[in-house]
Amino acid sequence: MRTAEIVSVGTELLLGQIVDTHAPRLAQVLASCGIACQRRATVGDNLERLIQTLRESLERADIVITIGGLGPTMDDLTRDGIAGALGDSLVLIPEVEAKLRAFFAERKAPWVESNARQALRPESGQPIDNPNGTAPGLLCQKGGKIVIAFPGPAGEFEPMLVNHVRPFLEELEAGAVIHSRILRIAGIGESLVESKVAHLMEASNPTVAPYAHVSEVHLRLTARAESREAADKLIDPVDREIRHILGSAVYGINETTLEAAVLTQLIEANKTVAVAESLTGGELGGRFTGVPGASKAFVGGVICYTDAVKHDVLGVSQATLDEFGAISEECATEMAKLARERFQSDYALALTGNAGPDASEGKPVGLVFVTVADRFETKTVRQQFRGQRADIRRRAAQTALMLLRSTISRGF
Amino acid sequence: MRTAEIVSVGTELLLGQIVDTHAPRLAQVLASCGIACQRRATVGDNLERLIQTLRESLERADIVITIGGLGPTMDDLTRDGIAGALGDSLVLIPEVEAKLRAFFAERKAPWVESNARQALRPESGQPIDNPNGTAPGLLCQKGGKIVIAFPGPAGEFEPMLVNHVRPFLEELEAGAVIHSRILRIAGIGESLVESKVAHLMEASNPTVAPYAHVSEVHLRLTARAESREAADKLIDPVDREIRHILGSAVYGINETTLEAAVLTQLIEANKTVAVAESLTGGELGGRFTGVPGASKAFVGGVICYTDAVKHDVLGVSQATLDEFGAISEECATEMAKLARERFQSDYALALTGNAGPDASEGKPVGLVFVTVADRFETKTVRQQFRGQRADIRRRAAQTALMLLRSTISRGF
Repeated sequence: MRTAEIVSVGTELLLGQIVDTHAPRLAQVLASCGIACQRRATVGDNLERLIQTLRESLERADIVITIGGLGPTMDDLTRDGIAGALGDSLVLIPEVEAKLRAFFAERKAPWVESNARQALRPESGQPIDNPNGTAPGLLCQKGGKIVIAFPGPAGEFEPMLVNHVRPFLEELEAGAVIHSRILRIAGIGESLVESKVAHLMEASNPTVAPYAHVSEVHLRLTARAESREAADKLIDPVDREIRHILGSAVYGINETTLEAAVLTQLIEANKTVAVAESLTGGELGGRFTGVPGASKAFVGGVICYTDAVKHDVLGVSQATLDEFGAISEECATEMAKLARERFQSDYALALTGNAGPDASEGKPVGLVFVTVADRFETKTVRQQFRGQRADIRRRAAQTALMLLRSTISRGF
Repeated sequence: MRTAEIVSVGTELLLGQIVDTHAPRLAQVLASCGIACQRRATVGDNLERLIQTLRESLERADIVITIGGLGPTMDDLTRDGIAGALGDSLVLIPEVEAKLRAFFAERKAPWVESNARQALRPESGQPIDNPNGTAPGLLCQKGGKIVIAFPGPAGEFEPMLVNHVRPFLEELEAGAVIHSRILRIAGIGESLVESKVAHLMEASNPTVAPYAHVSEVHLRLTARAESREAADKLIDPVDREIRHILGSAVYGINETTLEAAVLTQLIEANKTVAVAESLTGGELGGRFTGVPGASKAFVGGVICYTDAVKHDVLGVSQATLDEFGAISEECATEMAKLARERFQSDYALALTGNAGPDASEGKPVGLVFVTVADRFETKTVRQQFRGQRADIRRRAAQTALMLLRSTISRGF
């Protein structure tokens, strides 16, 4: 089995100013390809330490993968670091430079000479195409070792990983995989999930491990086998047993978000949904429309952040606002009914509440009302959440999605 | 200045199953204490590699801090690793064992002999009190080097950091801080920012370093001084010079988001804003309302994801939709005007476009129209963005916020 090490580059990482999520993502892909990631390192924008770290990693591992430091600035030292560690010179890739110049010309953006740094490669390296940014990645092969360099921006890292590097690594390691499937669970807490599936957590292939997120629990089922298909066959019966135990709380697998699962359910039922968002201010609509193809089922909504908008634009009665306040079951119910009528959708979701930081209308921080309306009736859930503003809003949106999910399942 | 390295321990980190947020948190504290964190490493639950990694770190750095691997199981090897790296034996701490036994007896939980592992310390180490868990931390001092070991669970890590380790480090480094200020910049690319401030990036105190984000650039100004106040005094003139060069592109500092900066501007001008979101589907409203106190200036909006909703709910004319399509300057302009009227706000922002993945109405992925309306006029920006769906939406929202920012500055 080949070994790999990941080197994340950037002083902002060493100062703790950003959290490194690329390295774990890359580690997952390495595992899925059957490559043992044995060490990760993080170094700052310091050429000497970067070269030293890369040299050490190259001594131990077959594959060394860097993240970050490929941009145009003087702080972007990864190209130089790799060249230094491999004993290579840097050479210009004329096609990349031409592409960069065309890119700037097209945007009428001034060409700065340092941009040309991005067109350099170590002699033993080849560029990896990056349609989402200016700096290409690098794939270097020398003396039986492989060095791969990724750009840091998320919109460039992920496509390069999926479209270029993962296929390369899969081909390299054909015949051994560590394959995981994540079961995504909402509407039930981590310790309860764990107590219900505890007997499955003792097995070793597949292993079952729980991870808690805000308002979700993920169970990761990981199998070792000679192929992805063989691993899936080991995972399947455990997957079935967990779904048998937890029922509809298991809403999807792997990268499926709760909003994507609900949209799929709506599209299959040929139904539509609209939203009326006070508490969440558009965040739920933003989550729905973040899913490609959302327009097949999500039609729109009203963001009614003030009482005036609730009344004037959506049509909530002044009597409801005066008597019960905007943070009330009555207001949530009316919002959902009105949104369903206004948007002529099959379902509507309404969210109102206090996300903090201070009490509002005398209602405590974390008090939330979420309503689903269908053609026959409304159903409202009242929750008192804890946590920060962002968590309260997230939990309320999760509640709305789970409520819609169970309402669609029931049918009408 | 003392140097430090952080070693995170756990196979789940190497498999990418969890994201390491403790190490960046610890790195921030090290910086605030004036200790230079020069490297981070992550190793799995493997004693040999752990000892090797700790030895290397101890050769380079004055302080080595581990996170994780202090629990009772056979996988928890950090105590053994530290003892191995320091050449210490492990000895029992009788008071800790007594406390552990009392803890289990109180909960009527069965005592498993492996629990006693948590009461071991390397000879040169002392336990650090952990009222939130069973395993104490460790503070070892030997041969001029310091090793500190933290437990991994968040509820144990953070209190131990704040209550014990930070005070220890502050005392160690009394009179030295590394303090950063981040200038947040939008509406101008990274290489152009860098070329304009290149002469400032050669200085060493404060240092100036650029970081590219989706549609933003951050310049980090970092100074070393004897106090935070003294560091701020070194940073202030450089801050002023950068603002002089880049003008209103510098929208805020540190954790200030662009939406928060725009809300502050609106509140100061005693003005309100509404949104009409097609492309972004509520995401911009979600960003505005993610800021505490947003209701002082953000009133609401319409999420008009389908043509029917644009016409029926917002009132965009059928002629506009038929003749120009929803992805057009004409539609964006009408959306902004209508939203401003409907919500009786001082400003309105409208966003329409194609976020992908496929061409729509024959308009390419990434084509975006963003309009701001005030009481006198509208201004529309047409952009052709690259990147993934999420990036295109994010860039469009940034464009809208910058457009509003310049419109408010101009006044009416």
